[in-house]
Amino acid sequence: MQMGRLVRQTTAEALAALARRDADLARKQIERDRTIDVIHRRIETKAIETIARRQPVAVDLRELVGAVRIANDLERIGDLAKSICKRVLLMDAPVHPDLLQPITRVSTPAMRQLGLVLESYADRDSGQALSVWSSDKQIDAAHAALLRELLTHMVEDPRNIVVCAHLLFCSKNLERIGDHTTNIAESVHYLVTGQRLDGERPRGEDLSFWRAPSLDLPA
Amino acid sequence: MQMGRLVRQTTAEALAALARRDADLARKQIERDRTIDVIHRRIETKAIETIARRQPVAVDLRELVGAVRIANDLERIGDLAKSICKRVLLMDAPVHPDLLQPITRVSTPAMRQLGLVLESYADRDSGQALSVWSSDKQIDAAHAALLRELLTHMVEDPRNIVVCAHLLFCSKNLERIGDHTTNIAESVHYLVTGQRLDGERPRGEDLSFWRAPSLDLPA
Repeated sequence: MQMGRLVRQTTAEALAALARRDADLARKQIERDRTIDVIHRRIETKAIETIARRQPVAVDLRELVGAVRIANDLERIGDLAKSICKRVLLMDAPVHPDLLQPITRVSTPAMRQLGLVLESYADRDSGQALSVWSSDKQIDAAHAALLRELLTHMVEDPRNIVVCAHLLFCSKNLERIGDHTTNIAESVHYLVTGQRLDGERPRGEDLSFWRAPSLDLPA
Repeated sequence: MQMGRLVRQTTAEALAALARRDADLARKQIERDRTIDVIHRRIETKAIETIARRQPVAVDLRELVGAVRIANDLERIGDLAKSICKRVLLMDAPVHPDLLQPITRVSTPAMRQLGLVLESYADRDSGQALSVWSSDKQIDAAHAALLRELLTHMVEDPRNIVVCAHLLFCSKNLERIGDHTTNIAESVHYLVTGQRLDGERPRGEDLSFWRAPSLDLPA
């Protein structure tokens, strides 16, 4: 939970750094990623030592394996937040708010889901974990809509290309944060109930616009 | 090693599917990713059971933890190959070979490093693992150069934007395959020697071109 809180705060501040183009705040989050990595390593070591010493079974073993898996996904969310911060440092030209603002349509559901899944872990609430797992499609749909919008801006004005390419990657990072959040929901559901959430998770992505002819390209 | 061979073959065929724009081959690799996930799960379960039952210490424990970590990185490489295949399915407009061919400057070193790190694991060769770890900068540099080239194509002709955006993501996926290969090298080095490769790994990325003014943008 301590690692979860830190990763969540780092992700929120990475997004604030992006919104405000705040290089100092971005640098702080990049620095903080080392702390996240240290905590990750410590959780993994402690869990493996406990498995080796105590030979746990059933729910105890699921708790330990669950902690290792969740810490692993949290570490990757931390990396994705760091990746957004590195882009903030590279984006030193002015960016029109019309380009920057729409990313909140992806980041808002992503941050909400991350908060909810950490709560479900704290409360051992498999129902809430299942609800997070089912809602990933909202983030995917928001990401797909944003990609379309950014590509349109690129086509309309080549001066937008570099900044929109940065934002494409930021949006992709948020979509991947959503995927890791969904993985955590699976781990929580498994450690509480002993049952895997199998089958393809629901996806809200409509990526058909990526097919070139559907974009309104200039002749 | 079985999982490593499968992931390596899947990645090679994903790249062949991209080069030839071969949708059937791409679909086959996407299907194969399920097998990779099953093997991954099996390795993880087996290693944890063994840790719980046998209470291994020193090199035996490092072998088991190493196997879990390496399987985890291989699974992620498989996901990145799948992501390239999904793009192949979306890229149904014709693509000029001048846009497609340069990605081999990133994929060739990435595939070579992946082959070498699997060899270093099979041979318990910490020297070769160290050499893979030190060479990741070549992939990063090739990726950075390709990004610059793709952004330039986008600026020059808006009709290139959609396909170049796909290729930006493919190149990024290859750079991340390189990162996971480097993680595997760290795991091999650790399991053989008991010593961590600490410190920042050498990076060959020069991403300064991402700053908008350095790109030769039309007025």
